[in-house]
Amino acid sequence: MVTIAVLNGPNLNMLGTREPTIYGTMTLERINAQLQERALLHGVTVQCFQSNHEGALIDYLQEHTPNLDGVIINAGALTHYSLALRDALVTSTLPAIEVHLSNIYAREAFRHHSVLAAICRGHIVGLGWHGYLLALDALTELLREQQKER
Amino acid sequence: MVTIAVLNGPNLNMLGTREPTIYGTMTLERINAQLQERALLHGVTVQCFQSNHEGALIDYLQEHTPNLDGVIINAGALTHYSLALRDALVTSTLPAIEVHLSNIYAREAFRHHSVLAAICRGHIVGLGWHGYLLALDALTELLREQQKER
Amino acid sequence: MVTIAVLNGPNLNMLGTREPTIYGTMTLERINAQLQERALLHGVTVQCFQSNHEGALIDYLQEHTPNLDGVIINAGALTHYSLALRDALVTSTLPAIEVHLSNIYAREAFRHHSVLAAICRGHIVGLGWHGYLLALDALTELLREQQKER
Amino acid sequence: MVTIAVLNGPNLNMLGTREPTIYGTMTLERINAQLQERALLHGVTVQCFQSNHEGALIDYLQEHTPNLDGVIINAGALTHYSLALRDALVTSTLPAIEVHLSNIYAREAFRHHSVLAAICRGHIVGLGWHGYLLALDALTELLREQQKER
Amino acid sequence: MVTIAVLNGPNLNMLGTREPTIYGTMTLERINAQLQERALLHGVTVQCFQSNHEGALIDYLQEHTPNLDGVIINAGALTHYSLALRDALVTSTLPAIEVHLSNIYAREAFRHHSVLAAICRGHIVGLGWHGYLLALDALTELLREQQKER
Amino acid sequence: MVTIAVLNGPNLNMLGTREPTIYGTMTLERINAQLQERALLHGVTVQCFQSNHEGALIDYLQEHTPNLDGVIINAGALTHYSLALRDALVTSTLPAIEVHLSNIYAREAFRHHSVLAAICRGHIVGLGWHGYLLALDALTELLREQQKER
Amino acid sequence: MVTIAVLNGPNLNMLGTREPTIYGTMTLERINAQLQERALLHGVTVQCFQSNHEGALIDYLQEHTPNLDGVIINAGALTHYSLALRDALVTSTLPAIEVHLSNIYAREAFRHHSVLAAICRGHIVGLGWHGYLLALDALTELLREQQKER
Amino acid sequence: MVTIAVLNGPNLNMLGTREPTIYGTMTLERINAQLQERALLHGVTVQCFQSNHEGALIDYLQEHTPNLDGVIINAGALTHYSLALRDALVTSTLPAIEVHLSNIYAREAFRHHSVLAAICRGHIVGLGWHGYLLALDALTELLREQQKER
Amino acid sequence: MVTIAVLNGPNLNMLGTREPTIYGTMTLERINAQLQERALLHGVTVQCFQSNHEGALIDYLQEHTPNLDGVIINAGALTHYSLALRDALVTSTLPAIEVHLSNIYAREAFRHHSVLAAICRGHIVGLGWHGYLLALDALTELLREQQKER
Amino acid sequence: MVTIAVLNGPNLNMLGTREPTIYGTMTLERINAQLQERALLHGVTVQCFQSNHEGALIDYLQEHTPNLDGVIINAGALTHYSLALRDALVTSTLPAIEVHLSNIYAREAFRHHSVLAAICRGHIVGLGWHGYLLALDALTELLREQQKER
Amino acid sequence: MVTIAVLNGPNLNMLGTREPTIYGTMTLERINAQLQERALLHGVTVQCFQSNHEGALIDYLQEHTPNLDGVIINAGALTHYSLALRDALVTSTLPAIEVHLSNIYAREAFRHHSVLAAICRGHIVGLGWHGYLLALDALTELLREQQKER
Amino acid sequence: MVTIAVLNGPNLNMLGTREPTIYGTMTLERINAQLQERALLHGVTVQCFQSNHEGALIDYLQEHTPNLDGVIINAGALTHYSLALRDALVTSTLPAIEVHLSNIYAREAFRHHSVLAAICRGHIVGLGWHGYLLALDALTELLREQQKER
Repeated sequence: MVTIAVLNGPNLNMLGTREPTIYGTMTLERINAQLQERALLHGVTVQCFQSNHEGALIDYLQEHTPNLDGVIINAGALTHYSLALRDALVTSTLPAIEVHLSNIYAREAFRHHSVLAAICRGHIVGLGWHGYLLALDALTELLREQQKER
Repeated sequence: MVTIAVLNGPNLNMLGTREPTIYGTMTLERINAQLQERALLHGVTVQCFQSNHEGALIDYLQEHTPNLDGVIINAGALTHYSLALRDALVTSTLPAIEVHLSNIYAREAFRHHSVLAAICRGHIVGLGWHGYLLALDALTELLREQQKER
Repeated sequence: MVTIAVLNGPNLNMLGTREPTIYGTMTLERINAQLQERALLHGVTVQCFQSNHEGALIDYLQEHTPNLDGVIINAGALTHYSLALRDALVTSTLPAIEVHLSNIYAREAFRHHSVLAAICRGHIVGLGWHGYLLALDALTELLREQQKER
Repeated sequence: MVTIAVLNGPNLNMLGTREPTIYGTMTLERINAQLQERALLHGVTVQCFQSNHEGALIDYLQEHTPNLDGVIINAGALTHYSLALRDALVTSTLPAIEVHLSNIYAREAFRHHSVLAAICRGHIVGLGWHGYLLALDALTELLREQQKER
Repeated sequence: MVTIAVLNGPNLNMLGTREPTIYGTMTLERINAQLQERALLHGVTVQCFQSNHEGALIDYLQEHTPNLDGVIINAGALTHYSLALRDALVTSTLPAIEVHLSNIYAREAFRHHSVLAAICRGHIVGLGWHGYLLALDALTELLREQQKER
Repeated sequence: MVTIAVLNGPNLNMLGTREPTIYGTMTLERINAQLQERALLHGVTVQCFQSNHEGALIDYLQEHTPNLDGVIINAGALTHYSLALRDALVTSTLPAIEVHLSNIYAREAFRHHSVLAAICRGHIVGLGWHGYLLALDALTELLREQQKER
Repeated sequence: MVTIAVLNGPNLNMLGTREPTIYGTMTLERINAQLQERALLHGVTVQCFQSNHEGALIDYLQEHTPNLDGVIINAGALTHYSLALRDALVTSTLPAIEVHLSNIYAREAFRHHSVLAAICRGHIVGLGWHGYLLALDALTELLREQQKER
Repeated sequence: MVTIAVLNGPNLNMLGTREPTIYGTMTLERINAQLQERALLHGVTVQCFQSNHEGALIDYLQEHTPNLDGVIINAGALTHYSLALRDALVTSTLPAIEVHLSNIYAREAFRHHSVLAAICRGHIVGLGWHGYLLALDALTELLREQQKER
Repeated sequence: MVTIAVLNGPNLNMLGTREPTIYGTMTLERINAQLQERALLHGVTVQCFQSNHEGALIDYLQEHTPNLDGVIINAGALTHYSLALRDALVTSTLPAIEVHLSNIYAREAFRHHSVLAAICRGHIVGLGWHGYLLALDALTELLREQQKER
Repeated sequence: MVTIAVLNGPNLNMLGTREPTIYGTMTLERINAQLQERALLHGVTVQCFQSNHEGALIDYLQEHTPNLDGVIINAGALTHYSLALRDALVTSTLPAIEVHLSNIYAREAFRHHSVLAAICRGHIVGLGWHGYLLALDALTELLREQQKER
Repeated sequence: MVTIAVLNGPNLNMLGTREPTIYGTMTLERINAQLQERALLHGVTVQCFQSNHEGALIDYLQEHTPNLDGVIINAGALTHYSLALRDALVTSTLPAIEVHLSNIYAREAFRHHSVLAAICRGHIVGLGWHGYLLALDALTELLREQQKER
Repeated sequence: MVTIAVLNGPNLNMLGTREPTIYGTMTLERINAQLQERALLHGVTVQCFQSNHEGALIDYLQEHTPNLDGVIINAGALTHYSLALRDALVTSTLPAIEVHLSNIYAREAFRHHSVLAAICRGHIVGLGWHGYLLALDALTELLREQQKER
């Protein structure tokens, strides 16, 4: 069965209380629940992981890669400098979609560059928690197309 | 009834034959047909326009704004320099979602910066023609949430 | 008789409704009417043209140059990148004054540089619709001084 | 009664003899006389001050601010680096219009950036001594509009 | 039969009168006539098109590509920013040679970079109207070599 | 009762032995003891935490925020790149003062920029271990002023 | 007896009325009175000087250096460009602490760089008028430690 | 006895499977075994440590420094931004040699700069797993020379 | 009789064997033979010189200038940094045309800038060995036009 | 009789005591005395002026220009930013030679650029107080040559 | 038999006397002798060449390439700008290892970039004359592996 | 006896004929004769060398250093990139004075930076052939002072 990891980086566990005018009032738990629900509809499995530790995100990815088919990742502020996380994604060879809740291009200059963007398949930005669901829709579709091609 | 314009900029009328390893083999006509189909499901109207002329895209937007509720835009190469198109979108005050078929962050450096990104609500990149459908899903949802808030 | 073209670029036809806190509530039609009135006082002719098309602005300038003595130009967002418009002004050899309604130096960084400024005689910025009238006053004066020198 | 200060920075007392092909042959005394004459027509008072000392320009502004309604300023070369003068203008909260005799955008690169431009209302460049008169016209108009709004 | 399009961008229709010390006194009509004459010698067809509109140049290229074997292009000032024209050339997959009448490397800094150079086969600069003829010679030769290789 | 966290980043646990000509011979334990003593005088509580792990500093801040009134932070080298720590401070909404023992502006260029400076209330640099005590004095004062305002 | 000069640069004499949301409502006179009071507690002498003239600040420093033991300096906007003031401080060989009332790192980009920071002992930023008192505390302490070492 | 730590950063535990065309097919375990073997020949002790956590690498270094004589380090992607690791190496005062398996200068631009290079003794790049052995040879030699000098 | 020097810089003697996919399989000897043949047709003399030594190219130019009417130069990699060669060309006052076999704008970034381009008459790039012949055609034409003008 | 002004900017009155390892132990008074002595030999008059005030240096130059034939200037730190002083020198139209005691190119990066260098005739750097004498020798010679030419 | 060229660029013939605190006291003759000795152990031939002339290094490489299997190169200061030497190495298609005696990353900024690094196999820096021996070890090993693969 | 080498780089052998409006009409032979004459007056020996070859200048310096006391150098265009010449000067440990005939700061941007300036004692620019004589005066003086100090 198709399994997709949803990785969230630093401070995303604070969603709902963190700067709600920027990030919305939805908690990460509720977003993950919505993802589980949508995964059921698509007939895929979703496993969610959040950490404030760059190293823990890499450990998780290394450990679970053999059982994964794709990754949805919102690396939080690590997006802008974690070349180690970038290398971990490349090493996994898994197709990945990057998600950002807020429109990072309308915020501080340092948020305009993602070190992950070039090595992910897709990039969904500024659509709030819907972005995760859209990423799941897209990744499921993409994995199906790949299976057909084989 | 909710009406959404889908604007495509220079060279996107060549989809299908244009660098298919980058942009896929789907024509713009077929993408538009898919959008019409999806619009029916969402109970919204979609009107599609493509031009190789920056000025024509601006004219279209100015003329149709009074009857529009939102915009999906893939400005092609104008994405990277058409500040006039940016101003036209801001002037319209319509919520917009920017779409790119290919992952612009994995291509030439000049494609890494979008002058539209900061003033669009969202930005969907690298997911091929699915990106348009995801944008439609997201924009419909966003417009519904807005209506509820009013 | 002295004839002056007043050229307005993309989105300036939307004045009055476009971001009124930045650009004011005066429409382009009313500004042009004020210019006509002032032209009468100065005993000069003013001919106004607006287009959202870079090419149309260049066509207009090429066609009318033989009958023109000077140009007042607000190129809108083209100000910041239309080197073709710059070349058209240089080719015409007409004295030109650049006008901007808002203070472009107090806005986004991309608005701080005008590719036209170096080749215009003068540059009037931030004084709203009065800027056009001041430009007309200045250009008329300048053309009179030139005539005396001949 | 409305009072406007006309401040001139370093080397502007040399007008008439200073690089006449760039700055013209008109002396500062004659420009000031023209301003006084025009002020009479507008029914406003103009007080002129020139100094080669950044500190003296700031002292003057601090001392006279309580009796001033607006400022016309040509800071000479201080335009390009005197952040202290910029702060003095901001501190005064007076509306200001920046004037330059020559087209600073057609000269050395270091003259292309004004540290005052962003905090002045308007910016009139390249129109010789007429620029001062235009600034007076514009500032008078602007102050009248403000009075009406109150 | 081999057919080559000769595309000229904004303001090149003004050749002969436009800054003759830079661009020479030869008109575009006479250059095109010379190209026709040379084409006859080479046994190829040349079709010439000039426009001040970026969009019209792209439209022309898209429409005529099926009947073309190569392109000679002098995009005028669009050379320095028209990424849409660049994409149109790439989309056409036609071999192209870029021509500039003046030595763009000896003029303003903004003329030193061509966004077309990287995707054209060749680049002929500074040799006046001869540049077009040399481009025709080279492109004809190049197309002959290609035919032999097939 | 007012509670203030004193956070120290990577390598600050090595104070006393680490490059003593730059950082002094005082250990972190003794600095913390001095802070406890001063806190007693001010009638506030201080809780100290040091980690070499960016993630652990963020975890600590997230966990203790509900019981904290302010933060004193010396993020060590993370100062220059940990945008995740910056986001964590912003998320906490606690007033923070940044401290550096050495004068970071007199050292390597990479130490001249702090990604935390813009979002902290204050910044105390170059005053050795006294900097922590000054920060405690300032933060206590600041919190008292805030309480009065409420 | 230990004597410390407190130097304030351009526009700091306007404190209290100058942009009070940024700089607070405390006047420079009251800050100086507070410094005198604190100096009494520390058993040191404080002499205060403010000028809008870079040259006057340098003159003052050169003249008083023989009777001074340290300097507290808030150079206002000169902070960002007065290399002459920097040289004057270096020439004096006095230990200096730089103070800024507002958090210069959270304001305009040109305020992020201090040409004095590298040659001062310490740098206290963003803590309002308290910053001066903290600087006095720190400088007194620092001078005492120096005396002990001798 | 001479003891040398061999530190490997993020994703180097994946050697052998990670992008084998870039990094080779040798696993980290086998490289470490080769190092142990070579250490035996040199009569030195080697202790190997890998972590995906920046903090863990720093903790390890701080803890083991008292028993170490030198360090061989391949910090993986941390090479390019971990100033905290750099500070940890400086704090240890141990001689270090930096190793990279691939030629980082022939890859993405972000890999061309090592924040560790300036503070390591040597830098061995592009020689695959042999690089570690060469580093061990060099470090052993260097430590012997140092002992002689004492 | 008209005499033209054809100068080739470092590594161009290796043509034919050097990276044939970039530079083609034609040797420099054969290119020179073709040039001689074409020169005969044009009734001009061509003298060819190649060196790997910047100094030797300058020596040659200085020595032969009195007998030369023009220069065709492919300076190889010296193109990008040999300001001394640039000065030598300027000193000679001979009209020169720069040739590059490959499209330098489609290769490494360091090849995009020629220090010779600004001071040569023309610049022919990317057309393989034909470029030399085109340069000879153009230079002959140009010298004829000059003779007529005298 | 030929008269030359020797202008010294901020902090140069402190020579002898100011950082003697950089600037030497010679006082400005003694340098001026040496200049007077040398002037006698050359049969020219030298008048020396030093100020810490940019404005005073400009005032001096404006006032004395009618009686001057040339200028020797060491503007101290103003060298690097005083565009007003630069304009004053240009306005005077006097030939000037810039002198620096220390080798500004071997010191801090901000000292590597002189805003005066481009508009002075000559530039003598790093030769200590001898530099002033050499400048006097050169300027006297230069003025003699000019007189002959007239 | 395997033959390796050891190329040394400008000033490396001065080793031993040249800045011995940076480059050590070992002469180039002794380093070459050590290399010959080591080559004997490896059963390979080493031929050494030093020149202060960029052109001579290129001549040598072109002439000897047919008899060489690899190159060890320390190009001295040419490392930082000799694109001609870079092209010569690429043209030779020989595997090369770049050596630097000192740690170029801990010295002046201009030494941090090597134009050869990207096209060499390996890069050994900062290990003094041992670097050459390590390069010989590595290159021998690498050539052996290549032979096996064939 | 004191011996000074006067080194001239590429194209300086063409003085007199080379761009005489920039470099003057004096030949290098006559400048050298003047230097010999002046050397006689100072009781020192001058030996002059010019080459268009960077390598030859380095060879000369290496060979003659043992018999030299100082160097006067005008490296021509090599000034701006010859790091190898810079290293040769450093290796020689001889005091050097850099001379340029023209004011390099008033010419093309690439001439504003000298890679030799930081490591020479002095820098004399823009004073024509007098610059060499001034350099000889200064260097003789400087060597005398050094002898006294010993």
